Order: sequence, then C-alpha cells, then structure tokens
Amino acid sequence: MDANDDPEFGDIESAAERIAPYVARTPLLASPELSRALGCSAEFKCESLQAAGAFKSRGACNAVFALDDAQAARGVATHSSGNHAAALARAARLRGIPAYIVMPRGAPRIKRAAVEGFGGRIEECEPTLAAREAAAAALVAASGATLVHPYDDPRVIAGQGTILVELAAQTAAPDAVLVPVGGGGLLSGTALAARRLWPGVRVIGAEPAGADDAARSFASGRLEPQPAPRTLADGLRGALSARTLRLARAHVDDIVTVSEEGIVAAMRLVFDRLKLVIEPSAAVPVAALLEGRVRAGRVAVVLSGGNVDLDALPWQSAPLR
Amino acid sequence: MDANDDPEFGDIESAAERIAPYVARTPLLASPELSRALGCSAEFKCESLQAAGAFKSRGACNAVFALDDAQAARGVATHSSGNHAAALARAARLRGIPAYIVMPRGAPRIKRAAVEGFGGRIEECEPTLAAREAAAAALVAASGATLVHPYDDPRVIAGQGTILVELAAQTAAPDAVLVPVGGGGLLSGTALAARRLWPGVRVIGAEPAGADDAARSFASGRLEPQPAPRTLADGLRGALSARTLRLARAHVDDIVTVSEEGIVAAMRLVFDRLKLVIEPSAAVPVAALLEGRVRAGRVAVVLSGGNVDLDALPWQSAPLR
Repeated sequence: MDANDDPEFGDIESAAERIAPYVARTPLLASPELSRALGCSAEFKCESLQAAGAFKSRGACNAVFALDDAQAARGVATHSSGNHAAALARAARLRGIPAYIVMPRGAPRIKRAAVEGFGGRIEECEPTLAAREAAAAALVAASGATLVHPYDDPRVIAGQGTILVELAAQTAAPDAVLVPVGGGGLLSGTALAARRLWPGVRVIGAEPAGADDAARSFASGRLEPQPAPRTLADGLRGALSARTLRLARAHVDDIVTVSEEGIVAAMRLVFDRLKLVIEPSAAVPVAALLEGRVRAGRVAVVLSGGNVDLDALPWQSAPLR
Repeated sequence: MDANDDPEFGDIESAAERIAPYVARTPLLASPELSRALGCSAEFKCESLQAAGAFKSRGACNAVFALDDAQAARGVATHSSGNHAAALARAARLRGIPAYIVMPRGAPRIKRAAVEGFGGRIEECEPTLAAREAAAAALVAASGATLVHPYDDPRVIAGQGTILVELAAQTAAPDAVLVPVGGGGLLSGTALAARRLWPGVRVIGAEPAGADDAARSFASGRLEPQPAPRTLADGLRGALSARTLRLARAHVDDIVTVSEEGIVAAMRLVFDRLKLVIEPSAAVPVAALLEGRVRAGRVAVVLSGGNVDLDALPWQSAPLR
C-alpha cells in the first residue's frame, strides 16, 4: 500500500495481524440501565481501555510497524498534540525508534505528559497550524523521519478499521454502528470494514454541532472545513481530508450532529451507568442516541478514548455567566 | 447448606453455576502505566463492571436463587442500604419476588434511587442500627420474607467467592490477591476459593485505618467492633461477624490498613490510568499497594464496585479547614 492509495479491506486484515501483539483486544460492554436511558439496546466497544487510552494506538501501531527497517530507523513524526501523538510515541518506543512530536508552546500539561511518558521527543513551535506544519516539515527534512498523519494516511485508516474486525467477532450484526467523527480516520476505517463484514449494518458518524464540517462536507460532497470549531470534544476539532471525505461518501450511511449539552449528559451517563471514564469526544455518538438523532433497535457504539482531565469534568464546572 | 453452616469450596462451585445466568463474567484489566505507579505487576478484576455496579450481585443472586419456591414467594429482606440492597433488589426482581429494603430516613438519594430502580420496596426507619434491626425483624415476622444479611450468610459468602473461580480461569496464580474488607464476606469467600484453586497465593485484606476493626480482630482473634468508623470508603464501615472472623483466621494471610489520603490517591489513579469509575471502597486495596503495605511481584486486585456520587469525587472537594 502506497501512502497515496486508499486503503482496502485487505489492508485492514493485514493491520489486524500486524498490530495484534501491540494493542489490546478491548472488551465489549453493555448495561441494561444505560440501554434503557438511551431507548435502544446498545453495546459499547471500549477503546477507552485501549493502550494509551484511545483507539489511536491501532492506526499508530499499524503505521509504525509497516515501515521497513531503514525507514523505521529514521523515526516517525507528527504535529498532532492529542491522542494520536501519545499513541505514536508509544508505538515508536515499542519498535525502538524515535518519535518527534511537534507541539505548540502552551499545550496542556496533561498532553505533554502523555507524550513524554511514552518517550516522545517534543519539538515546540508557535501555536498556529502554519507554524506546526512548517516545524514538522523542517523536522522531517532534517531527520528523514516518516510523517504519520493522524487520519489522512491509509495505514492509519486501516489500523482504525481493525476495531470493526474485533467487533464483528464479539457480537451479532446490529442495526447500526456509531462512531465519533473528527478527521474521519475512524469513520472511514470502520465503514470500510463494515461493508465487508457487516454488509447490512448502517454506519453512522456523530459530530458536535459546533464542529460540523464532516456533516456539511458529507452532505455537499465537497470539503467544507470550519475555520473556528467550538466544542468541548477536543478530539473532534479536525476536518475531513479529501481522502476521508471520499471514503465516507462511498461507505458511510449518515453523519449526525449533537449539542454540547448532549455531550456532557452522555459523558456523565457513561460514567454513571457503564462505570467507564471517557473523554468528551467518546460521548458524542452516545449523545446522538440520547438526543434521538439515530433511531435503531440494536446499536454498537465505539467509545473512542478515555483521556480526560479529572480536575475539570464538564458537569462539575460552575456555569459561566 | 444451612444458614448456620460455614460455607465450603463446594458451595462456591455450586454458586458459580447457580448465578452464571444472572451476573457478568467481569473482565480482568491491566495497565502498564498503573503497574509502574504501584511498583508491581497488577491485574484488576473489575467488579465495578458487575451487574448493579458491585460484586454484591454475586452473593445476592446466590442467596435469592438458592431459596425453594415457597420461601422465595414470600420475598427477601435486608437492612443494608448500600450495594447489597441494590443487588438484592435486582436479584429479587430477576426471580419475580418482592425485596424489602429497610433504610434509615435521610439515606442518600442516590442509594434510594438505586434500590427503587431495581424495584425494591423501601421501608423507612429511624437512623440507628437498633431501629434498622428492629424494623427488619418486624418486617420478616409479618411477611415471612427471608432476611439476607450482606455478609454474615454462608450463601452470600459462597457467592462472593465465585470471583476467585473466575479469576483463576483468567490468569496464572499471582503472588497475592488483594480485596477490600468491610464485614468480611468478600474476603472470606475469596480466601476459601483461593485455598483450593490458588493454594500458594497469599490472600490479603485491605481496610481503611479509620475503620480497622477487621485488622484488629484478625490480629487478636476476637471481635473488636469499632463504635465510630471514620472513612470515605462507605462500603467498608461494617464489622466482621463471628463467622467471617473465623473464616478469615482460618484462610487469610494478612489484613493491612491504609490512610484516607491513600484511598483518594488510589481512586484517582484508577480513574486516570485504568479509565474505570470506582467507588472509594474499591480503591482501598490499590491504596495498600500505593502505600507499600503489601510487597509482591504480581498481584490480582478485586475492584469491588463503581457506585460513586459523580458530583462529589473526593479529589475535587475543597479541603475542609
């Protein structure tokens, strides 16, 4: 698979085999009380319990372990500062190669700590997208490291698709599978795998209304990035790429949007009924059920990650006035 | 098995078969980051993910489904107001019989809601132990319901012991297995099963220093109830019974105590690294590792429950002055 190709189902199968030693087979959990609250029978694929606390470990491990030894020796790099950065640092450490993470000055301490905890080498830059891209390009030019984009990369997408391979072995085909959408890597990987393994199942993306570029781009068929996304779901502020939009238009049934209040309520509900710590982004597809944006009898929901600041859980902050 | 007999390993095997349709086989989870923080290799048996959010569902289901039809028809009763009450209400509903729960006036809304959510019939009484026992006795006399004590009951103890039966099938024998101690039902059930299935494994109870009747009773060999237990771990304020002390002295290796600060730190660590919502009682054995009260290379820890007030997580309350 070339970095410019779109991934196919065979790439997901290869990824599943490649990453098996390095990622968790996460449990599928359910709670009758939570299903009752959501008005459907829901099962939850707990990627919050994945290595490094998010599904991103799948794509990152697939990208890192697919490199040949000469490429790998020069390391990997990214300019994401979220879960992908920590997952890439972890994958690189497992392979024994450097991971260079470009991070804006002033990034949250908790994100720096996650990357440093996995041995990632943080390169600081000014806090603008242009500065991040420039710093990453300079770093790649100087080191020969391979840039691993958080979602616009076929190996990353194939890695994320392995979630559905596991899901399909853990439960019978539901009416719909729901995942959060940021840049669309998880959504397109999931949809690609579902088309083969669960052909009758609707694949639905859920997105914050305050960061709804994917829903609008999916509807219009052309990229409609949002200049200033506003959402608590910090993992979903990215925009679709041409590749993930193409894959979504080919394989995804719908993208729905949810309110910020719905995200907070859904997050709390998962803490309370499923007893799982999840981050706001993971609550987005749960909010889609809670707000009635998806109608289905049986659903499988991907809980994408659990990396949240425990000192600032959103239902505990005093309302701003 | 008579209500006056001590349980034996065969009772635990019977319980495992009896309750299998009604309880979850909970996952065993681990996190390299959490193990590193605790200074040992730790695996966690997640009873926080058990039905009704705590291991208590095991003992309650065993007691309820062991009744003959005539006994069962008259219902079950208890005067516990915590996880046992919710678990008993749930078990009774599964069997289609009434559960009478004696609860002191002014009990936390969250505890009432849990019992009511499972269809339990709450009978209010004055908030003293004497009033609770009198109310329960009157209720049993009037209804013919079977009193199911939260721990001083051989069927309840045998039910709790099924955790270790599952554990032994999920992992190799560790150096030690750690469980929290309140009244000693979980501890004695676990120890009974460990003696048969994991004979070389140390069985260790962990208790808050502010509610250390079990540690003192275990050391002296006679019941030393504590008149005014002071601990955040609301599930561990009960005192050993003659039966659970006898079983502990026969089968348990040690009971250690932990500080309140250690409980809060351990609870937060489990939220942060394992991504699991646990209640303070469940954090007590984790605190024993964190505070160096147990030295072992490989440990299995029972995370006893996940029912906690999300509006009052202990690391978020301002320190009282």
